[in-house]
Amino acid sequence: MQTLHVELGDRRYPIFIGSQLDPKTLLAPYIKGQQVMIVTNTTLEQLYLSHYVHDLESLGKKVATCVLPDGEKYKNLENLNLIFDALLEAGFNRDCTVLALGGGVIGDMAGFASACFQRGVYFIQVPTTLLSQVDSSVGGKTGINHPLGKNMIGAFKQPEVVMADMAQLRTLPARELSAGLAEVIKYALLGDLEFLAWLEQHMDGLLAGDESLLAQAVYRSCAHKARIVANDEKEQGERALLNLGHTFGHAIESYLGYGKWLHGEAVATGMVMAADLSQRMGWISAEDLQRTKNIIQRAKLPISCPKIPLDEFLSYMAHDKKVLNGQLRLVLLQQLGQAVITKEFDVEKMKQVILENQAE
Amino acid sequence: MQTLHVELGDRRYPIFIGSQLDPKTLLAPYIKGQQVMIVTNTTLEQLYLSHYVHDLESLGKKVATCVLPDGEKYKNLENLNLIFDALLEAGFNRDCTVLALGGGVIGDMAGFASACFQRGVYFIQVPTTLLSQVDSSVGGKTGINHPLGKNMIGAFKQPEVVMADMAQLRTLPARELSAGLAEVIKYALLGDLEFLAWLEQHMDGLLAGDESLLAQAVYRSCAHKARIVANDEKEQGERALLNLGHTFGHAIESYLGYGKWLHGEAVATGMVMAADLSQRMGWISAEDLQRTKNIIQRAKLPISCPKIPLDEFLSYMAHDKKVLNGQLRLVLLQQLGQAVITKEFDVEKMKQVILENQAE
Repeated sequence: MQTLHVELGDRRYPIFIGSQLDPKTLLAPYIKGQQVMIVTNTTLEQLYLSHYVHDLESLGKKVATCVLPDGEKYKNLENLNLIFDALLEAGFNRDCTVLALGGGVIGDMAGFASACFQRGVYFIQVPTTLLSQVDSSVGGKTGINHPLGKNMIGAFKQPEVVMADMAQLRTLPARELSAGLAEVIKYALLGDLEFLAWLEQHMDGLLAGDESLLAQAVYRSCAHKARIVANDEKEQGERALLNLGHTFGHAIESYLGYGKWLHGEAVATGMVMAADLSQRMGWISAEDLQRTKNIIQRAKLPISCPKIPLDEFLSYMAHDKKVLNGQLRLVLLQQLGQAVITKEFDVEKMKQVILENQAE
Repeated sequence: MQTLHVELGDRRYPIFIGSQLDPKTLLAPYIKGQQVMIVTNTTLEQLYLSHYVHDLESLGKKVATCVLPDGEKYKNLENLNLIFDALLEAGFNRDCTVLALGGGVIGDMAGFASACFQRGVYFIQVPTTLLSQVDSSVGGKTGINHPLGKNMIGAFKQPEVVMADMAQLRTLPARELSAGLAEVIKYALLGDLEFLAWLEQHMDGLLAGDESLLAQAVYRSCAHKARIVANDEKEQGERALLNLGHTFGHAIESYLGYGKWLHGEAVATGMVMAADLSQRMGWISAEDLQRTKNIIQRAKLPISCPKIPLDEFLSYMAHDKKVLNGQLRLVLLQQLGQAVITKEFDVEKMKQVILENQAE
């Protein structure tokens, strides 16, 4: 097991990364009160819930559970309210802990609920997908979707501890493993060319579920994100780089309707679009663009999106949270392995990129 | 006009207190972006909204409005979502400002919406009731009610600026002015015996709407609260003293259903109950208790509550946010003018207090 510390002053917290980790031993020191609400989904309920309930009860905790439907389309106000209902029906107080046992959707919703319930209670994350292990474990972004935009309502909420267990990835569908690899590839593209080479070398092992390789990829991704977040917790500057591929990707997700494409799949195609625009602006070479497409394809991820009318695509992009004073900003690649956020891009070239990266 | 600064480090902000204040001049420096969403209710819409829209538009801002139904019973998730709908339909971004034009309900909802929209945008408060001027102006507590408890879902969100205009109290119903005086009296009872004497001297003028006296009462109340909040923003300790009368009061409000009694009315009776228990525990004298009842009655506020079954009253009290590890804590009067938070109270005496302060 490796331990990574996210350095956020008095909200510093550890991420435990390994295989077959023991929640009882690792989480106990981080549960402050006597009450724990485990938030999970119907799929994970069958796989892990009774095990966690048993472990925490054996620590003398009062454990309640809230099981939500599985999927991004349920990441809304209505289901968030089910967590509040469960907390209040259990009679839980300000010293309770909300434990998210699940992927990004569960982490985002449980985290947001913990930020709002009684204006803030304790939060623990056990991310069970590769995507949530490399993305949601660090940074404290929580929230829900709105019919007019993704993640439009939320809070910054740091957990007390995160436990990322590679053994839980054994039950993860292959498509979701690939979606997680999209975010892993993102860290390489935006800031670590050496990591890109490592991924090119080990992609087959990662896809085969080698837990030692996966743990290394998770550690390296989290370490990257932790460094960036420690510098810029509230996304005033550098943190926006983590949105490489996301402005295009969110537009794809919003148009298709949440849940049709996985978030990682949309980000994968979004990164191809960002790289393509960077190439058209003369920042990266055609070879760099091809290398970007190759690693994404090798991870079994899409490099083009379905047909989307240009005006609708642009309209969804305009809802992006990086819009400042009405002006869209994009994360592009200055070089391969070095991202920048900029409003100085060519809008016509951006439109070409959108049109020319759509599948027939 | 007087200016009071709430000292919260880099979230320091001013409260302007006076009569016939100019929003255009006073608020302009605190509106960071170009978009302003004014949140108000149907009553205030008719009195002030067009004036504010005009003033802000003349500053070159893009102004949108969200008009909510008037009343505490609308302080729920459903109406909160109307604010999110309005913000997204207007195409507002992360640099927008949410301006609350209204009393406590509007301030709490608009503030909470500003805390959550895009994980936090700017917030400005123009409190239009005495209660919100002395209570919601300071402290950053925002939120909504849940069927199982008041203010159970929310956030700490500090405004950029607060403007409290006594001229807006001219249209305030007498009953609501009295409800505001309940919180003014609270500051005297919990920490300022000299202020209690001042209130005893000026109660008639305050009830008559003397704007100079009202401004003084608002300034002194806000100054008290600001000092306490600066010491203890997240309510780990001293800030809990501000809940004098609130644990009893919330039980009354919850039982009756939100909106039957005004918050200030429930707090008034709650303060009588807290004083009564303090007297029964030998902390304050019978004369002190009588003095407490007198000033509350002179403000035309209730000193006893309707018949409520004891077990229901206690059950609502158990949902209080001051419950820690399952144990109820109460704010009581060590002396008149000096409150303490304690779990060392006599439960049987508390039950007597609840039963014996109910009207026939």
